[in-house]
Amino acid sequence: MLSHFTMRLKLTIAYDGRPFSGWQAQPCGNTVQDHLHVALREIAKAPLPIQGSGRTDTGVHALGQIAHFDAPAGTVMKPFNWVAALNSHLPATIRIMACEEAPPDFHARFSAIGKIYHYDICTEPVMPPHKAGLAWHVPRLGDAARLRAALNLMPGRHDFHAFAAYRGNETAEMDYHRTLHAADLETLTDGCRITFFGDGFLYKMVRLLTGAAVRVAQGKLDPGTCSALLDQAPGLPHGKSPYCAPADGLYLQQVLYPPSC
Amino acid sequence: MLSHFTMRLKLTIAYDGRPFSGWQAQPCGNTVQDHLHVALREIAKAPLPIQGSGRTDTGVHALGQIAHFDAPAGTVMKPFNWVAALNSHLPATIRIMACEEAPPDFHARFSAIGKIYHYDICTEPVMPPHKAGLAWHVPRLGDAARLRAALNLMPGRHDFHAFAAYRGNETAEMDYHRTLHAADLETLTDGCRITFFGDGFLYKMVRLLTGAAVRVAQGKLDPGTCSALLDQAPGLPHGKSPYCAPADGLYLQQVLYPPSC
Repeated sequence: MLSHFTMRLKLTIAYDGRPFSGWQAQPCGNTVQDHLHVALREIAKAPLPIQGSGRTDTGVHALGQIAHFDAPAGTVMKPFNWVAALNSHLPATIRIMACEEAPPDFHARFSAIGKIYHYDICTEPVMPPHKAGLAWHVPRLGDAARLRAALNLMPGRHDFHAFAAYRGNETAEMDYHRTLHAADLETLTDGCRITFFGDGFLYKMVRLLTGAAVRVAQGKLDPGTCSALLDQAPGLPHGKSPYCAPADGLYLQQVLYPPSC
Repeated sequence: MLSHFTMRLKLTIAYDGRPFSGWQAQPCGNTVQDHLHVALREIAKAPLPIQGSGRTDTGVHALGQIAHFDAPAGTVMKPFNWVAALNSHLPATIRIMACEEAPPDFHARFSAIGKIYHYDICTEPVMPPHKAGLAWHVPRLGDAARLRAALNLMPGRHDFHAFAAYRGNETAEMDYHRTLHAADLETLTDGCRITFFGDGFLYKMVRLLTGAAVRVAQGKLDPGTCSALLDQAPGLPHGKSPYCAPADGLYLQQVLYPPSC
């Protein structure tokens, strides 16, 4: 059936971040968004801009990145047909896991009300070769109780200025307050997973929080210092948490929207 | 302590087969054995030949490949020191998991008394991007009971000529008899794993056995035909099993030696 209107489509996308220069389109052309633009153009025979829920950095993985685009009027493809069509034009390290119709005002970035990231740490003495780039190798992680205690400091509404890297587009009015609903620790067979659930995340915030928690576990950062980095007094020069975990173990797991989306 | 004699060392090696042109040294230089030769030469400042338990093809993975080499007389390094030394000269997709002293007559290939391979199959509708090249994607695997029944035909001592690919170095006297101790099926969260344990395997035998079993499960190969391909009458032209599973899902899991090794 021919549609006379454009149809807003919501994609769930998984990718192995290792071969790509992050999410955001770039002149180099080797980002996830670039590959999606190429695939959409090949199918629709016209450029179709695609909007993601947010950027991920070079090497960062996604299990449930969300993006939207508008299928042009006259498209005969049903939403689920886009899954196989796009996958046949994408590298095997980027997969469309689902495609569904969304309300016309759905916006992958602005409709989002929360995100879940997880960070995998491998504590084996030798990093298994099949995990290279998929987990952070920390053979001496230190004390699990200290790791858990550091994570327990983090949930709540805080000024996370100390856990935000400089991106270059910051303004003086930028609000660094975010609500972290949970920072949970789970044991895996070869290490552990830290899961962060929040209403939004600043640039490199998950990697800076993970880096700080691991350094507390290793006895290299005092829990009091970690705590003092949250909610620093406004107007004073901000201290910055000095430990950023590598991209390797970071996964954008899920983007949350209101039930109406 | 300086050793006055060469010391035979046994390496346990894991690798992600995707970036490499198999195990066996080649002029192209991008095989696992080539990378090990480079690493050994960098450490020992002299070429040290290394012998593996057997070849693996392009794209085939290993969790417990075994190889031996002789550390030259005068080497001060203890066996376990070779683990970190070699790993620091190898790509992250090849890892030395262990190094131990072996008897002087230990031979990675000729001392082996058995091997365990497993083959991973992913049955998800869309292949997860982090599994690309690490499992065979078979979204329509068919009937698990038929798969199990096909695998149950295989163990025992058989002429596996029908399940051997042509390598080019075959002789008229070549013996195609092998003993398959087990062909077991295990359910995974996103598919299944077939584990083959035998005293030795012919060229592409695991992939041809897996291909046949999957085709039986899908109803594309009759179990009777599969059975007839085993133990064909000698002297007659041999039928060949026509289905070879891809390298993607194949792992050399373990090489077995007598307790004295």
